[in-house]
Amino acid sequence: MSLNIEDNEVDIVIAALRSDLTAFMEKWRPFFSRFHLIIIKDPDMEEDLQIPPGFDHQVFTKSDMAQILGATSINFSGHSCRYFGYLVSRKKYIVSIDDDCLPARDNTGTLVDAVAQHIVNLKTPATPFFFNTLYDPFCKGADFVRGFPFSLRNGVECVLSCGLWLNIADYDAPTQVVKPNDRNVRYVDAVMTVPVRAMMPVSGINIGFNRELLGPALLPGLRLAGEGKQRWETMEDIWCGLCTKVVCDHLGLGVKSGLPYVWRGDGVDAQGAMESLKREWEGVKLMEEVVPFFQSVRLPRTAVTAEDCVIEMAAMVKEQLGPLNPVFASAADAMVEWVKLWKAVGSQGA
Amino acid sequence: MSLNIEDNEVDIVIAALRSDLTAFMEKWRPFFSRFHLIIIKDPDMEEDLQIPPGFDHQVFTKSDMAQILGATSINFSGHSCRYFGYLVSRKKYIVSIDDDCLPARDNTGTLVDAVAQHIVNLKTPATPFFFNTLYDPFCKGADFVRGFPFSLRNGVECVLSCGLWLNIADYDAPTQVVKPNDRNVRYVDAVMTVPVRAMMPVSGINIGFNRELLGPALLPGLRLAGEGKQRWETMEDIWCGLCTKVVCDHLGLGVKSGLPYVWRGDGVDAQGAMESLKREWEGVKLMEEVVPFFQSVRLPRTAVTAEDCVIEMAAMVKEQLGPLNPVFASAADAMVEWVKLWKAVGSQGA
Repeated sequence: MSLNIEDNEVDIVIAALRSDLTAFMEKWRPFFSRFHLIIIKDPDMEEDLQIPPGFDHQVFTKSDMAQILGATSINFSGHSCRYFGYLVSRKKYIVSIDDDCLPARDNTGTLVDAVAQHIVNLKTPATPFFFNTLYDPFCKGADFVRGFPFSLRNGVECVLSCGLWLNIADYDAPTQVVKPNDRNVRYVDAVMTVPVRAMMPVSGINIGFNRELLGPALLPGLRLAGEGKQRWETMEDIWCGLCTKVVCDHLGLGVKSGLPYVWRGDGVDAQGAMESLKREWEGVKLMEEVVPFFQSVRLPRTAVTAEDCVIEMAAMVKEQLGPLNPVFASAADAMVEWVKLWKAVGSQGA
Repeated sequence: MSLNIEDNEVDIVIAALRSDLTAFMEKWRPFFSRFHLIIIKDPDMEEDLQIPPGFDHQVFTKSDMAQILGATSINFSGHSCRYFGYLVSRKKYIVSIDDDCLPARDNTGTLVDAVAQHIVNLKTPATPFFFNTLYDPFCKGADFVRGFPFSLRNGVECVLSCGLWLNIADYDAPTQVVKPNDRNVRYVDAVMTVPVRAMMPVSGINIGFNRELLGPALLPGLRLAGEGKQRWETMEDIWCGLCTKVVCDHLGLGVKSGLPYVWRGDGVDAQGAMESLKREWEGVKLMEEVVPFFQSVRLPRTAVTAEDCVIEMAAMVKEQLGPLNPVFASAADAMVEWVKLWKAVGSQGA
């Protein structure tokens, strides 16, 4: 499906965890160059960024963060630096792709325009209230299968598009240690709506979202004590994904998963994963508390925006999860702080 | 993934709506020939069946039905004749494929062994309690994505495998009229668990199921007044699918959708669909009552088998849907009658 995409309705947000973005940006040039890029330099990084010419871009560094945010308890280092980009964007849609990912090829060998696919996913409705066995009914050549109620075919607005990865899949540290040579080679040519009340592990590696409707829920909440720069050491996106799914279910908005794929580069070594395992084990254990919590959250009818929902959830996190582990209390504080920043930075104008 | 499949644990059930099964069975020979086939002749059909030699098969006709069942209020004509095969089977698994479907080819041009794929789907666990963005974690080369709780990775027993169709998709009559030339060419190389509480429109065209655990719920319940021999004129499988999904959710069993594909032959004409539209419009309208009903069904803890669940649901159908339309009262009666037949025929021995 092709839709008209306006250059000025999309920001590409890049979390720069590597100083040399040359190869990354050259490979993405055909798909990124027409859009505005917001590049956030990991505040832990010392080296200067290398960015090839020819892109309409803004770079934000540690000092920009200090200037724009003032004193904040939220830690924007590592993968979490991207969230600063979500704060300063003024566009309707954001697409964010990790800097170790390149454009993938589809089953016919064609390079995939991940930005276009995310925007198509976001501009066509989602259908969370009934499962369509033929996948996304709004894809070209597809439709609703026999038995899908007509009253549900208009669907709801899709506000989050979760893309996938070829080559290195997004595994946790234990799986990475057990299967160091596993590569994802299966290109599944499908987009689907994640049904209402089904909880999912959103990966922040390759996503698109509607910033206007969902932005306040895309937040850096849960930060592990020993969080490093490897994806399998982080939980920020998993936590954020559970928050957004609860918000979407409550507000009657949709989430899709599937296309587009990106090609995730190597850079994985079993030894590194083994080292990470010590740190990330904490995250793996936390999920056993986190998932039942989010599955049980019911928000009040008075929560009618993403901001409202986040504030309500923060209180529940503090009360129900807080006593179990101090990282949850910190996550609750970060959620409240995030909404404060969202309003403050938003009111500063473009 | 390949698993050891015993010949004697699978019955292939074929609803013969066409008298000449030669082409159908020859094409399926490589995949069907090692298994026992139960062929049910549509009781409305006058002509003799033509079945090529070399298959271990049994044919059941109208007179067999009368002899085995005695007087019954269930109408086994048309697509519903397959359910008689489910009753007389004594195997653990049943695979049932419509007689207008042939083996499909995958993206590499290889003929798909639909029986093997259904059995793999049924023998590997389903994961209905959390959504795995990497599709079936038990497929070769796949696994659980980061953030999937380890406590949920054992999954639950999968008892229903819903396959898909290339070429002619399974649309309802209105869609068929609107898009007479649409063909499904997208081969989506994925199997996924349908999440708990997500309702889905099961198509009976290409399915596999665990007869021992789920058989009593695979029943011919809803029969439209003007039901014909075209798939888009029937609702039996949609109704049956909603029943089975409720049963699975209640009993903690799993349902998968996706692979295997079959190739659904042409034989569709826009004029035919137009004629059907008059009849099937009833079915399309009924779904608007049916879906909210099944979404709201909660079964009591005392229902611990598929039989128990069906009896409980039949009472709810009668009470809640019965007053809306006489077809629902008939469906409730058929559900009770089915469980009676299931017990009676089951006790007759093989």
